[in-house]
Amino acid sequence: MRIVVLAGGIGGARFLRGLKAAAPEAEITVVGNTGDDIHLFGLKVCPDLDTVMYTLGGGIHEEQGWGRADETFTVKEELAAYGVGPEWFGLGDRDFATHIVRTQMIGAGYPLSAVTEALCARWQPGVRLLPMSDDRVETHVLIEADGERKAVHFQEYWVRLRASVPAQAVLPVGAEAAKPAPGVLEAIAAADVIVFPPSNPVVSIGTILAVPGIREAIAEAGVPVVGLSPIVGDAPVRGMADKVLAAVGVESTAAAVAAHYGSGLLDGWLVDTVDAGVVGEVEAAGIRCRAIPLMMSDLDATTRMAREALDLAEEVRA
Amino acid sequence: MRIVVLAGGIGGARFLRGLKAAAPEAEITVVGNTGDDIHLFGLKVCPDLDTVMYTLGGGIHEEQGWGRADETFTVKEELAAYGVGPEWFGLGDRDFATHIVRTQMIGAGYPLSAVTEALCARWQPGVRLLPMSDDRVETHVLIEADGERKAVHFQEYWVRLRASVPAQAVLPVGAEAAKPAPGVLEAIAAADVIVFPPSNPVVSIGTILAVPGIREAIAEAGVPVVGLSPIVGDAPVRGMADKVLAAVGVESTAAAVAAHYGSGLLDGWLVDTVDAGVVGEVEAAGIRCRAIPLMMSDLDATTRMAREALDLAEEVRA
Repeated sequence: MRIVVLAGGIGGARFLRGLKAAAPEAEITVVGNTGDDIHLFGLKVCPDLDTVMYTLGGGIHEEQGWGRADETFTVKEELAAYGVGPEWFGLGDRDFATHIVRTQMIGAGYPLSAVTEALCARWQPGVRLLPMSDDRVETHVLIEADGERKAVHFQEYWVRLRASVPAQAVLPVGAEAAKPAPGVLEAIAAADVIVFPPSNPVVSIGTILAVPGIREAIAEAGVPVVGLSPIVGDAPVRGMADKVLAAVGVESTAAAVAAHYGSGLLDGWLVDTVDAGVVGEVEAAGIRCRAIPLMMSDLDATTRMAREALDLAEEVRA
Repeated sequence: MRIVVLAGGIGGARFLRGLKAAAPEAEITVVGNTGDDIHLFGLKVCPDLDTVMYTLGGGIHEEQGWGRADETFTVKEELAAYGVGPEWFGLGDRDFATHIVRTQMIGAGYPLSAVTEALCARWQPGVRLLPMSDDRVETHVLIEADGERKAVHFQEYWVRLRASVPAQAVLPVGAEAAKPAPGVLEAIAAADVIVFPPSNPVVSIGTILAVPGIREAIAEAGVPVVGLSPIVGDAPVRGMADKVLAAVGVESTAAAVAAHYGSGLLDGWLVDTVDAGVVGEVEAAGIRCRAIPLMMSDLDATTRMAREALDLAEEVRA
């Protein structure tokens, strides 16, 4: 079975761990969000790709969900001693090595997809990890600060400001000119199932879908497309998805997110048992829906969620 | 008093510590060798400039003579885990931060001299540290390996091969097209004394002198130029200077090094007491010479050496 998963960071990465356990024989291709990539200290940092790679490769800081386990922060402290920031972005020494290798390879002319493959040769994530695009796409968030509207990098909005001010718009800068990375459209065309894990529908999956050609390829693949709600009981399971949903005029409910993807794209939708009341509404909109426990509290729970997603896909297919 | 010092790495840096103590009121400008600069992991590393900066700024690893005190090697271990080398060059985590800042600034368009000034704003070395040139100069060493002649980067010859094969030639690649960094010629023209510390006469001071304009400016400055022999009793005090002296056809003796600089450039020369026998020979060649203890065993001994150098300069002037 060939499965394509669109993934952001923590939510996507943890779901993938369950999916690998639920379908150990499947060929899984992950199309990773690169809209939250950022240049820091002259180095190219790809937080979402790295979270997937570290999580599946056994290098992740488990409690935190991002960054490396057993991390130290000597380089960052030294940079601060030079007065060089930003200090709000937590790059550890182990993590720095990843960004140094990536930046060196990109400087030598390799596209991000080739770099990602090279990094994965070490981590052996057990999936094929592709960036959504080799072209630079940077998600910016429009905010109002000191009476002025301005666009800040997504990481600045998310990490420095902790989404504490309303997002007026989310702008995937460069997306309209970006091309899907080599292998992305081919993987989608060859997929048996396409899954949207409980990643952020706007700044993770939404950004991937904003790369021209990807949404169309998914819609035209002719295979079940199933998703899992990142919203449980009107609040994001993790993170601050409600902030960016508001920016695109979508309510923070499991039903509203399903409607945002739309029945033209999405065939099946899993909501949490606390949201069982919306199943009828989602199905009325032409999307098959089931309510199951959606908390990725451990690998077993996550594996059950992945199995339910695959079961729902079979139900859709039949 | 304005003093200009041409400096390589460890020898130059330690001597400068003594010079600062011997002449606390002096304005010292250091023209640093950049011929041993190397790009590693996509980062620009300037070993000699950093050794001077760390030594005078209190950050040096004292026993080792280069690199940072209290150093850790997490980044390097992680790079090795990615299969990315070289492993023979010991870059520590603290040191990495310096190269990251430098590379970022150079990428942003700053010349090396401006970058060095910015780095020194943290270290406050108490001297004005100038790279010999903002242009790229890279010392290569011609060797014979596996029956073939080939040029290797100086660091590869020095650090990886530990000068274990004969150097057939020393090539300061790019030197003939390099321009002295801003301030270098001005500092030499305004100097009261010019000092060659016991740095390597070929790959440190020799490289600086290979930048067109610098040798001429020193010869024409009309002020005493005094040097300290890096060779004591027919062997280098430290390092493997004999290997590269042989490549330029110079014997490893205090007298031969003085003759290599020549009376057209050098006015005074300090040799160690064990080499007192060569004083007559050096003076016969037109270079005033004295024999004093030349071991930089501690700050007091080094300060005495610096004082003797300044005294010799005054004697030359008189």
